[in-house]
Amino acid sequence: MQKPVFGAGIWHFGRYVDRYASDGYGPPVSTLEAVDLAGQVEDLSVVDMTYPFDPAGLTVEEVGAALKRNDLRAIAVTPEIYTRRFNRGAFTNPDPEVRRAAIELVSAGAEAARVLGCDYVKLWPGQDGWDYPFQSDHRQLWRFSLDAVGELAAAFPDLRFAIEYKPREPRNAMVFSSVAKTLLAIEEIGLPNVGILLDFGHSLYGGESPADAARLAISRGRLFAIDVNDNYRGWDDDMVVGSMHPIETFEFFHALREAGWDGVWQLDQFPFREDSVQAARDGIAVMKRIHRALDRLDRDALAAAQRAQDALTAQRVIQDALYGPRDAG
Amino acid sequence: MQKPVFGAGIWHFGRYVDRYASDGYGPPVSTLEAVDLAGQVEDLSVVDMTYPFDPAGLTVEEVGAALKRNDLRAIAVTPEIYTRRFNRGAFTNPDPEVRRAAIELVSAGAEAARVLGCDYVKLWPGQDGWDYPFQSDHRQLWRFSLDAVGELAAAFPDLRFAIEYKPREPRNAMVFSSVAKTLLAIEEIGLPNVGILLDFGHSLYGGESPADAARLAISRGRLFAIDVNDNYRGWDDDMVVGSMHPIETFEFFHALREAGWDGVWQLDQFPFREDSVQAARDGIAVMKRIHRALDRLDRDALAAAQRAQDALTAQRVIQDALYGPRDAG
Amino acid sequence: MQKPVFGAGIWHFGRYVDRYASDGYGPPVSTLEAVDLAGQVEDLSVVDMTYPFDPAGLTVEEVGAALKRNDLRAIAVTPEIYTRRFNRGAFTNPDPEVRRAAIELVSAGAEAARVLGCDYVKLWPGQDGWDYPFQSDHRQLWRFSLDAVGELAAAFPDLRFAIEYKPREPRNAMVFSSVAKTLLAIEEIGLPNVGILLDFGHSLYGGESPADAARLAISRGRLFAIDVNDNYRGWDDDMVVGSMHPIETFEFFHALREAGWDGVWQLDQFPFREDSVQAARDGIAVMKRIHRALDRLDRDALAAAQRAQDALTAQRVIQDALYGPRDAG
Amino acid sequence: MQKPVFGAGIWHFGRYVDRYASDGYGPPVSTLEAVDLAGQVEDLSVVDMTYPFDPAGLTVEEVGAALKRNDLRAIAVTPEIYTRRFNRGAFTNPDPEVRRAAIELVSAGAEAARVLGCDYVKLWPGQDGWDYPFQSDHRQLWRFSLDAVGELAAAFPDLRFAIEYKPREPRNAMVFSSVAKTLLAIEEIGLPNVGILLDFGHSLYGGESPADAARLAISRGRLFAIDVNDNYRGWDDDMVVGSMHPIETFEFFHALREAGWDGVWQLDQFPFREDSVQAARDGIAVMKRIHRALDRLDRDALAAAQRAQDALTAQRVIQDALYGPRDAG
Repeated sequence: MQKPVFGAGIWHFGRYVDRYASDGYGPPVSTLEAVDLAGQVEDLSVVDMTYPFDPAGLTVEEVGAALKRNDLRAIAVTPEIYTRRFNRGAFTNPDPEVRRAAIELVSAGAEAARVLGCDYVKLWPGQDGWDYPFQSDHRQLWRFSLDAVGELAAAFPDLRFAIEYKPREPRNAMVFSSVAKTLLAIEEIGLPNVGILLDFGHSLYGGESPADAARLAISRGRLFAIDVNDNYRGWDDDMVVGSMHPIETFEFFHALREAGWDGVWQLDQFPFREDSVQAARDGIAVMKRIHRALDRLDRDALAAAQRAQDALTAQRVIQDALYGPRDAG
Repeated sequence: MQKPVFGAGIWHFGRYVDRYASDGYGPPVSTLEAVDLAGQVEDLSVVDMTYPFDPAGLTVEEVGAALKRNDLRAIAVTPEIYTRRFNRGAFTNPDPEVRRAAIELVSAGAEAARVLGCDYVKLWPGQDGWDYPFQSDHRQLWRFSLDAVGELAAAFPDLRFAIEYKPREPRNAMVFSSVAKTLLAIEEIGLPNVGILLDFGHSLYGGESPADAARLAISRGRLFAIDVNDNYRGWDDDMVVGSMHPIETFEFFHALREAGWDGVWQLDQFPFREDSVQAARDGIAVMKRIHRALDRLDRDALAAAQRAQDALTAQRVIQDALYGPRDAG
Repeated sequence: MQKPVFGAGIWHFGRYVDRYASDGYGPPVSTLEAVDLAGQVEDLSVVDMTYPFDPAGLTVEEVGAALKRNDLRAIAVTPEIYTRRFNRGAFTNPDPEVRRAAIELVSAGAEAARVLGCDYVKLWPGQDGWDYPFQSDHRQLWRFSLDAVGELAAAFPDLRFAIEYKPREPRNAMVFSSVAKTLLAIEEIGLPNVGILLDFGHSLYGGESPADAARLAISRGRLFAIDVNDNYRGWDDDMVVGSMHPIETFEFFHALREAGWDGVWQLDQFPFREDSVQAARDGIAVMKRIHRALDRLDRDALAAAQRAQDALTAQRVIQDALYGPRDAG
Repeated sequence: MQKPVFGAGIWHFGRYVDRYASDGYGPPVSTLEAVDLAGQVEDLSVVDMTYPFDPAGLTVEEVGAALKRNDLRAIAVTPEIYTRRFNRGAFTNPDPEVRRAAIELVSAGAEAARVLGCDYVKLWPGQDGWDYPFQSDHRQLWRFSLDAVGELAAAFPDLRFAIEYKPREPRNAMVFSSVAKTLLAIEEIGLPNVGILLDFGHSLYGGESPADAARLAISRGRLFAIDVNDNYRGWDDDMVVGSMHPIETFEFFHALREAGWDGVWQLDQFPFREDSVQAARDGIAVMKRIHRALDRLDRDALAAAQRAQDALTAQRVIQDALYGPRDAG
């Protein structure tokens, strides 16, 4: 296997706000400042850029230059279809004008992605869904969602669109809530340039096995990208990789390498109270540990255990790779 | 709408065991005794029969006669592919002989279903899945599962097979874990006589909106049957209908009636410590309350609120139907 | 029982922000604007005021006048010890200067509470806890928390301090996480003027029975106040009262009335995407429905069922009160 | 630190049943057979014995001899107050005769514990609680529970009684549901010989930090024993130690050693589908790994990070101990 490439969402280096610290967990961070912070992380090669850039008026060329200066590449653009204007929905907003505005914002982001030479445009329709029982006609939300993604994919056939699914937050329920539901939608859309961004934490707290989810998306040719982080299984805590669930992170990485995955190992951490540069370094250091453990893994022994569905043997094999030999580590 | 038909799984009237009260929550109950208990529930018209019958040697004709005597009809047969022999998997067992035994047991159950004139054979592969990370190759479990269901559906083209999905239990993770994943499997199998049994409680504790899940299965023509019960959203508690989540139960019923659903309103309750006949009566009484509330529902007002995705208005409309007018109820 | 008094947190009428709609779910709302919005809710009598007031410089007298003009009374002051300065902890911050600043902010809020004639000062140390395993010495966080609350209670013996517990958010784990843990702390502090604000939603998603939690706090003489709202049992969604769990809300109200509770029935809803005045009206309307149902409740029948721990009978009794007689409602 | 002593519940080696595989996950296992299986686990020194022994008539002397022959010691007796007779409650059963029977069964178990020279009698009142809202008067359940435990502790002042708390299962809600609630009960009982058995898995899926829970129980002098296992955080899966949450297991062990804990490191695993002897060996092997990692831990560096509440540094320190140095492991 070639050397793994590491990435991060640019928001990793931004400023966080929530409903309690509404004055922010720190001072504002502009797009160029965030790029410069990302540039301090030695092993980071690519970033996923939110769009529009901040402040307004900052051009894609200026952003491209900042990336280049920091030896970074934009792997993706993520249009911000979840801010105030879209708080009652982007693709599924009851107001047709807002739905149109969402399409237009993604289209502008897609143009920027072309200029930056990105691999994909990320769609994260986090406001598309519902909060209350009886609030909406679920068929209509489904229709709106698929029509919008289909329109975008048809309009930009040279680009790829990766839907990031998540069970909930900020809406209490999202339309694209699981790997399987998103695959159903993608196959119904029927275009080759729509796929999935699988976020390990979203999958975990949605009750999936991230390794199983990855296998399923790969089997349909739709795994376009991944994000990693960790959580307490009850919410999208976006903690540093491996801090809670190293075993399942290891299994996820194993499934990806086993399937010949050649994408980027990308951070989606939210270090609310931590130094963002250090948090990125630490997340990557954990990913490197896992890759080294995979190099040590006795794959034949694991495959034999899996054919027998022998949980105890499988655990012993992977523990030896992760921690070192049983009676020494 | 015609008068709703009510049903129950025959196990509702059986004897419960768990890992603590391993001597059972009561004395054993034979198949015929359970049928006679079901017969005491005035509004009950149909039952889903586990197979094989108990005790061994009890014939399908004897069972049929007992049902008739109690003015009941068998709507389905549920082969018990989750007992000791299948504890490491039925369709996905690592041992090919056990996988074959599972197919044979379901086939025998299907023959019984033919004799009894059932609407469908229920497949509940609760032991098909995994417990530990790294225990199995998820692609293989998927393959085994789809091959088995496909073989059965092809062998009995005159019967319908309804897969009951569930996130977990007794396995820590099930292959058929959600409505969307099961639909992906069904569409991959590609036969018209495979569909879904949607259990309200499974859907709820799996993080789905049962109403949304029903819409999705119906849109693909695959909703063959439903079960209802209630729980604390963290486990399949199989409590009496409406005892915890009447609003979402109401929404589920609304979605089904709105879509022209004409199936049976069926109980899957496990009254461990309660009188099973009374629990069934009470579950049906709640379902009748909900149907009456649906009759009172201002559908135009609700539809308008849903077009606007107006949660507050929708809640007011449904509360008036459920509890009576605002300032009186 | 005398007529119930209804209240709300003033933030109900404020502006919401989260990590996605970081530009807010609407425009900023000042303290006086929020008070005027609260004044539009006909049945609202009291409000819980966050402190400091917004904008800076707004005096307690001006706030008092605005309340009076709107026929409202301040039942409590909630010092904002969870904003940027306190994002790594208020009472438990590793920096002694910040810990001191938290005490001072609460003290200033307590002075305002005196002027406003409040019933209690609410302590909501939502940033006091930890995010990661191994991050902190739990004994030290406990010590810091108890020392701070004890110091405040001793400094203001004429005021009451109500700790609002919650399992998590914004910290991944809070020190005051449950009713029982908070009671342990309060009894260790040993002062009479420290008690609990029991938030129904916090209790529910923390896995408690809110009715049981209320009984426990009352039995120790420590239930100072309550907040109500609703959620999906997995997060503090702060939805409109009764929209998800009317049965347990009913049980909570029953426990309070049965115990002779004479406090305020207070809303802590976060209507992110809804009209805040209408959401408050609707929450109060649901509470009034529940109070009317309690008036209709056959208390003797319920008490008899509870003595027998007879779940089915208890459910029938409360359903008749909530929905009307069984064969009519 | 002296060499750790490892133990297991004797049920680890027994036969499992659940509501699906009601014919058991394997053939029945008698008490003496289970003891002989436990004897095959090289590093196992002590066992917790369920009572009454199986089959009926097996004497405590025969059990003692079997233990001795296997080089094992009984650390505790666990009276089975959760079987059929007690399915509607043991200490809290609505029937006073059954409540008395529960006291008598525990008393008989306590006599056996005396003969066997146990350290404590374990109380696991898993059927004491409720299933439905409104089912019971929570004050009465509390009263019944405390009276029963107090009576037992007073009757056997030479023995210690350890309450094993758990959020739920088999009841949907248990009276002794959390460390804090159990401590409140114990302090209300007011006797020195009542304490807590802290099960790591119960604590984890109850939303506690097991390390924090251990600290709290130790600070009150009430931590009598621990059990370890693992789960998916949503249910008491009783999986092999460290298979899901090694970081928090490590933190739990660290808290215990830091506090000078000198008890037994005891397994409460339920290997439904695995070889029970191998599962015990593997669980102990993981515990030995963790103890070795603790030996390597840079305690000064960790203490400094905790004083600063510096999550990233703390994680780096513990990862180096668990996996080996950062750039090598």
